[in-house]
Amino acid sequence: MRIDFAFAAKLLKEHSQIEILCHKSPDGDTLGCAYALCRALQSMGKKAKISIDDVIPHSFDYMNDNIEVQQFEPDLIVAVDVATFDLLGSKEYREKYRDRVDLCIDHHTTNTDFAKYTLLETEPEAAAAAETLLLVLYEVGADVDSGVAECIYTGLSTDTGCFRYSNTTSRTLRMAADMVDKDIPFEMVNKRMFETRTKTYNALETLALASMEMHFDGKCALITITQDMYHKSGSDESESHSLKAIPRQIEGVLAGVTLKEDADGLFRASVRTNAPADACRICARLGGGGHKRAAGCDVPGKTLAEAKQAILDSVAAELESL
Amino acid sequence: MRIDFAFAAKLLKEHSQIEILCHKSPDGDTLGCAYALCRALQSMGKKAKISIDDVIPHSFDYMNDNIEVQQFEPDLIVAVDVATFDLLGSKEYREKYRDRVDLCIDHHTTNTDFAKYTLLETEPEAAAAAETLLLVLYEVGADVDSGVAECIYTGLSTDTGCFRYSNTTSRTLRMAADMVDKDIPFEMVNKRMFETRTKTYNALETLALASMEMHFDGKCALITITQDMYHKSGSDESESHSLKAIPRQIEGVLAGVTLKEDADGLFRASVRTNAPADACRICARLGGGGHKRAAGCDVPGKTLAEAKQAILDSVAAELESL
Repeated sequence: MRIDFAFAAKLLKEHSQIEILCHKSPDGDTLGCAYALCRALQSMGKKAKISIDDVIPHSFDYMNDNIEVQQFEPDLIVAVDVATFDLLGSKEYREKYRDRVDLCIDHHTTNTDFAKYTLLETEPEAAAAAETLLLVLYEVGADVDSGVAECIYTGLSTDTGCFRYSNTTSRTLRMAADMVDKDIPFEMVNKRMFETRTKTYNALETLALASMEMHFDGKCALITITQDMYHKSGSDESESHSLKAIPRQIEGVLAGVTLKEDADGLFRASVRTNAPADACRICARLGGGGHKRAAGCDVPGKTLAEAKQAILDSVAAELESL
Repeated sequence: MRIDFAFAAKLLKEHSQIEILCHKSPDGDTLGCAYALCRALQSMGKKAKISIDDVIPHSFDYMNDNIEVQQFEPDLIVAVDVATFDLLGSKEYREKYRDRVDLCIDHHTTNTDFAKYTLLETEPEAAAAAETLLLVLYEVGADVDSGVAECIYTGLSTDTGCFRYSNTTSRTLRMAADMVDKDIPFEMVNKRMFETRTKTYNALETLALASMEMHFDGKCALITITQDMYHKSGSDESESHSLKAIPRQIEGVLAGVTLKEDADGLFRASVRTNAPADACRICARLGGGGHKRAAGCDVPGKTLAEAKQAILDSVAAELESL
């Protein structure tokens, strides 16, 4: 059931033991929302904890400062920035939460309403779930102190590529200004999110750039990241995220694809597009989802060549439809 | 003489034939200011033109749309984002303007007051000259339409790395929000400024990454860009700018140096620092200047090895002083 801000605030106010769920492969928005909400609830004297079926990258450690670790049976379960039930984690993990998520605060048009109550800002789509969550916190009357503000800022900045992408609105920028006014170390946040290169990342980027292929008359650029590249560079999957932005950046490219091989030999594609190509449509053809300009999907194929063909076929279908 | 906003506005209102000067190696701030001011003045029925002793990169073409080319003898000469007289251009070019610059609108603490009147926002330092110029335009009562707003946004975004860097303030973000509210294509601007990679740029980046050297216990990263690399990649100097950000991004680096060889075999360094290292001090030792976190200088040396030694000596002096 779709609800409004007042209803979401009422739910949070009426409960006192709240568990917060993030999506797997956590990014700055799902984590920023979770930490912001957890901090705000603990400040109000409620019990709050964050659950996630994944490793939280060290780059996000700063948001965890001074959060109290609390064990309890929840009376309310809230998912933040989680578009579908499957995104919660592995099959085993998510069974614990089947039909048990009370509230989902999200901004994805593809949200499947898996929670009992869903607060979704899609018209226009909020740039980040953190935008929607900030309005919920204001409605609740929570204290948005600098600790909370740093987490909200992280969500806003991460999901907009630091206010670069077309999903940014003047509201996003004004919310960011309000968070900056709380004296948050936003330059540290941005440095961690966008500007820190390890030597191993540098090595991985060099390999990934060398793997670049152009297809369909230069309208598609594809880079490949294999397990072998991780071994050669001393890097790992956690360092591959910012590479995804590169293929779309090549002049003339409508669909930028990053095809990654996971440790089990399965393939996953991350697709970024320039208008009018639609990343969500490209990924939806293979059972994935996301936004118009950025989406992802598992890709069938036993070999890299098969996987490449599968995602390129879907790109071709999209380009032909334009 | 230092002046206030009211005085700067009065100067612009009292004159009707205004020439606007940019600094050489023009960036989005000096050009954004020049185009914004030129548009606003022409809208007010004044004559206005932009002079620059350099090629304007094509990526900035969008700001030039619908600006009328006007020839006239100026009754007011205004420099925007120009910290020192030398930055206007070659010796021959700048002789035309010696003791003739009436007004300078700037944000560099290193401004040498070469103009008759200088409007400078340094406490705190405006993130971009475009911030200061926008306030001047408001004071003048100019119409900040979407054409002007696009140019102001370009200045704000360029000089803050799209609101990432520590010079960004909540005022910068609110001004950007106000510009976004004028329905400007800000994502196109950011794509052009930050996200467009030509194939030749890709090739140049791969060579530059391979040239990276670490010095002083990992506190300094240095990349070199030579004329030979331009030949090999098919690229040129205009594509080297965004490489400058890379050395500082390596974990643990305090001083990131990009050493470039120009067509005449002379060397120039661009220095970016992380706190507490001071880029301006590093470059000032070699006669250059700039800001705490980003500065530049010519580097003495007949060979690459000599130039490298000269800039590394200055980095060493800075690191020892910390």
